[in-house]
Amino acid sequence: MKRTAFFISDGTGITAETLGQSLLAQFENINFVKLTRPYIDSEEKARAMVQQINAAAEADGARPIIFDTIVNREIRAVLAQSNGFMIDIFSTFLSPLEQELSADSSYSVGKSHSIGHNTNYMERIDAVNFALDNDDGARTHYYDKADLILVGVSRCGKTPTCLYMALQYGIRAANYPLTEEDMERLLLPNALKPYKHKLFGLTIDPDRLTAIRNERKPNSRYASFAQCEFEVREVENLFRRENINYINSTHFSVEEISAKILVEKGVERRFK
Amino acid sequence: MKRTAFFISDGTGITAETLGQSLLAQFENINFVKLTRPYIDSEEKARAMVQQINAAAEADGARPIIFDTIVNREIRAVLAQSNGFMIDIFSTFLSPLEQELSADSSYSVGKSHSIGHNTNYMERIDAVNFALDNDDGARTHYYDKADLILVGVSRCGKTPTCLYMALQYGIRAANYPLTEEDMERLLLPNALKPYKHKLFGLTIDPDRLTAIRNERKPNSRYASFAQCEFEVREVENLFRRENINYINSTHFSVEEISAKILVEKGVERRFK
Repeated sequence: MKRTAFFISDGTGITAETLGQSLLAQFENINFVKLTRPYIDSEEKARAMVQQINAAAEADGARPIIFDTIVNREIRAVLAQSNGFMIDIFSTFLSPLEQELSADSSYSVGKSHSIGHNTNYMERIDAVNFALDNDDGARTHYYDKADLILVGVSRCGKTPTCLYMALQYGIRAANYPLTEEDMERLLLPNALKPYKHKLFGLTIDPDRLTAIRNERKPNSRYASFAQCEFEVREVENLFRRENINYINSTHFSVEEISAKILVEKGVERRFK
Repeated sequence: MKRTAFFISDGTGITAETLGQSLLAQFENINFVKLTRPYIDSEEKARAMVQQINAAAEADGARPIIFDTIVNREIRAVLAQSNGFMIDIFSTFLSPLEQELSADSSYSVGKSHSIGHNTNYMERIDAVNFALDNDDGARTHYYDKADLILVGVSRCGKTPTCLYMALQYGIRAANYPLTEEDMERLLLPNALKPYKHKLFGLTIDPDRLTAIRNERKPNSRYASFAQCEFEVREVENLFRRENINYINSTHFSVEEISAKILVEKGVERRFK
C-alpha cells in the first residue's frame, strides 16, 4: 500500500521533513513516497501545490499526508483546501508558546536557518575545514584545538562522522587511522597519547568493513575478510586496554553515532 | 531575559532540536539557552532530567520550554511532572495520524534515524566519499556520476555545501574552482563544458571572501579585497554569459543554499 507524504515549507523544508520522518517512521508497514517542497512562499505556489496534492490523492486512492511549517496564514489556508491530511506545526504550537512566553511571535518565514548574525555559519564552515585539514592523521599538531578525535581502522566511518558533527553542530573533530603498525606494537600512536581525554573510538563489523574496502580496492589483502577481522579485533583490544570509549558504527546512522559520541564526551552542541 | 529550552528525546534529539529551533526562532527578543538531551530512554533518566529542568526553572525564574519526542508514555509522564512547559510531538500528532492511516504505530523509540536496511546509510557515505574525491576539480572524469557540480571562486563555500548535500540527502555533488586562468580566458573550463546541465554557481560578497581568505593566507594578494572583488565580478559575468544559475552564499546558511540548489536543479532528495 502506497501513500504520498509531502513536506511543505516556506523555507528549506528541513523542519517539515524531520518532523514528518519522525512520525511516519512509526508506521513501518506503510510504504510512503516522501516529497519535499520548499519555498512555497506565495499563494500562487500554494495553489500549484494543491494541484500536486490532489493528483497524488487520486493516484493513491487515499489522502496524502501533509507536514507543513508554513507561517503565513493565508498560504496555509490555500493548502488546507487540498485533499490532503494536514499536520501543521505552527498553527498547533505557536499560540500556546506565545502565551507561555508572554510574547508575540515574529511571523516571519524561514527563520530557523537564517543567519541574522554570521557566527554560527562561519563556525560550521570553520569546523568543516578543521575536519578536512585534520583528516586521517594527516596533521597532528592542531589537536589542542580539537573538541574530539575519532580513532579507528581505515574506512570504519570516521570522516563522515567528523564532517556531520562539524556541519550540524560546529564541532571540531579530527580523526586518526589505526593501522597495522599500531596493532603490531599494541600501543596508542605517539601523536595521540597527550590527547587521550579527547579520543573516541569507532569500530565496525568485519563483514561490513570488507564490503566497504572492496569498493575502494577490490580483491586486495586490505579488503580481505581475514585482514578486516584481524584489524577490528586488535583495535577493539587496544580500545579496551587504553580505556577508550568506543561505538560500533555498523548498526547506527551518522546521526546516532554523533549523538552518542557527544553524550559520552559531554560536548555541548554549538547553537546560534 | 533568559529562558532555558530543553530538546529531549529517547533517540538522537535531532527532531526535538529541529522542531524547537523552528518555533523558538519566531521569538527574536528572547535569549534562549538551548540544551539537547538525547537518549532519555528510561524512567530513571527522566527523573534526572526533571531535576535539571526544575533547577533551570529556579535559576531562570521562569518555566523552561521542553520540546520532546519521547514515544514511551511512562517516560513522558515522568517528564510531565517537571516544572517545565511541555511541547510534545508524539502525544499531539500520533493519534490523529493513526486514525488517518487506519494503522497502529510501532511505539518504538529512535526510529527516525535507524538503519533497518542499510541502503540509505551507505548511500550517504558513498555520497560523502564522492564529494571528497571530486572536490576542488581534483578529479574530473567521474562527472557522469555526479548529480550536480558546484562552481565558483576559491573559498566561496562549495565544499561545505557539497558535503552537506551528501550527508543529508545522499546527493553526489562534485565541485570545481574557477580561478584566474578561467577569468582571463573568459570561458568555461573544458572539463566542465560537457556537463553544463549539471552546473550550479556559487558566488559570495567580496568582503566576506576577503575575511575567509585572510584566515587561510593572511595578507596575501589572494586575500586582498581588490583580488576578491575582481574574481567575484568576473565569475558572475561568466555565470550570466554561460546561463548558469547561481546563488550568493553570503546571506544564506548551508541548509538554505542546498535547498535552493535542489529546487533549481529539480533533484529529489534520497530518502530511505
